[in-house]
Amino acid sequence: MGRARLVAVDWGTTSLRGALLDDAGKVLAEKSAPLGILNVPGGDFASTFAAQFSEWMRDAGSLCLISGMAGSRQGWQEAPYAPCPAGPDELVKRLHWIEPGRIAIVPGLSVEQGGVPDVMRGEEVQIFGALRLTGLTDGLFVLPGTHNKWVTVQAGRVTGFRTYMTGEVYGLLTQHSILSRTTEADAPLDEAAFLDGVRRAGEGEGLLHNAFGARALALFERLAPAPSASYLSGLLIGEELRTQSPGREVVLIGAPALTARYALALKQAGVATRTLGAEATWAGLAAVGEKV
Amino acid sequence: MGRARLVAVDWGTTSLRGALLDDAGKVLAEKSAPLGILNVPGGDFASTFAAQFSEWMRDAGSLCLISGMAGSRQGWQEAPYAPCPAGPDELVKRLHWIEPGRIAIVPGLSVEQGGVPDVMRGEEVQIFGALRLTGLTDGLFVLPGTHNKWVTVQAGRVTGFRTYMTGEVYGLLTQHSILSRTTEADAPLDEAAFLDGVRRAGEGEGLLHNAFGARALALFERLAPAPSASYLSGLLIGEELRTQSPGREVVLIGAPALTARYALALKQAGVATRTLGAEATWAGLAAVGEKV
Repeated sequence: MGRARLVAVDWGTTSLRGALLDDAGKVLAEKSAPLGILNVPGGDFASTFAAQFSEWMRDAGSLCLISGMAGSRQGWQEAPYAPCPAGPDELVKRLHWIEPGRIAIVPGLSVEQGGVPDVMRGEEVQIFGALRLTGLTDGLFVLPGTHNKWVTVQAGRVTGFRTYMTGEVYGLLTQHSILSRTTEADAPLDEAAFLDGVRRAGEGEGLLHNAFGARALALFERLAPAPSASYLSGLLIGEELRTQSPGREVVLIGAPALTARYALALKQAGVATRTLGAEATWAGLAAVGEKV
Repeated sequence: MGRARLVAVDWGTTSLRGALLDDAGKVLAEKSAPLGILNVPGGDFASTFAAQFSEWMRDAGSLCLISGMAGSRQGWQEAPYAPCPAGPDELVKRLHWIEPGRIAIVPGLSVEQGGVPDVMRGEEVQIFGALRLTGLTDGLFVLPGTHNKWVTVQAGRVTGFRTYMTGEVYGLLTQHSILSRTTEADAPLDEAAFLDGVRRAGEGEGLLHNAFGARALALFERLAPAPSASYLSGLLIGEELRTQSPGREVVLIGAPALTARYALALKQAGVATRTLGAEATWAGLAAVGEKV
């Protein structure tokens, strides 16, 4: 077993996850708790951190890097965004030290495109982890989720990205809209219905119209509640593909249930994919940690 | 005062409105109650109808036409949709009689486009009313609302239409999404912010991305909660304009607060508009009633 070198922490909105890494970035131990930034008892981040990680901190020679929403205004302390283009070097320069030399928050990234900013917190670390794990220095990365990101990397740095409210809008439409009556939000994926939705979105009519189409199909009993969920998911992911039109391999990073949908949709568009999971976060924090 | 000829009823989801019309379609009296189809006491449509309109029915020689959601599956009785193309003649042929010769529900319209159906209930009557009031026989009509309609009319018949979930998605985003924290949904219209949103949508990035832009602008304190509502409204209406690209005058039918927004957005796109209000419903029911 290697020497403990880094306590890597991913502190998100709903969960707190940590890993103890050795010099080579190998995971020695992992833990997680439902202590996301919105669920920190008494808002006392320092005590919550100590309760979870003080033992590991002794083992690791006291270096801890934290990524995710812990660095947002609602988090432990606000870590201002690093502007793109940015790679691990820029993140290290802008680490927000909670305890100098000991505990730092990794900043998120910001970018300005067409007069409107965009932001990420946490995904940047997953991307640098993916670069490390794949050996890539350039590429197009997709990180599905509540606020899905499409990210361009050149020479090891993020040069631009776009956020899509895909996951959140899926939840709103299936839980709170008129579609909730005829959609079984948690149904297993129906591939044919999903790919129908992707194709429909590609015709360019836009989500506001196409989503109502799911309602009308249900009214005429041409779309049952289970495939309706997949069709709607396809409309949403297809809407991303319509505006991104990726012409090269895409690297997907995230939970298998979501990345599998993007892989299917991209395959239909003739685009190859490869997929990484949660390991990308620890690899990314290791990549940043090596430069501290 | 003309002779009472028709009891015109608009029975929607949240309200029940009626008008007593003379032979020329002139409004002799009006009433409304918060007795939409979801709020009918005991689900007893017949008694609710009688309590509101039995006196008028005697005056009007017993003819009543009802438009709107009363003809839906959740309404009084289901009146199957009339397929497009359809004009007042087609509606008369497909009247759903509750009491033969006395009380009828006017059917909504359906259309099939690109393998997906679309439907309306109530708007068709407003459109035929607008044709009567303007003298038009052809045109492009927009009826803003929860489920906004863009409708093409040729030779006095509806030949096609598209529904957009614009109003509903505005409500979802401003009340239930991450944008709710930084958006004052009921703020008065900020024209500059609204038109910025319309322009932004016209660039084609799609709503899922552009809506997150409103969040990012707020994060950097570049968009305050009141103009944020107008910007988001512009993003939504601009998304409709992006896919419709109307090249000719548009007739707007609906509540002034909504039609004014479409008039602004269309003016920015160089498209002339004219606007009609609730009078279109009574004129439309009169137009159908003349053919019964």
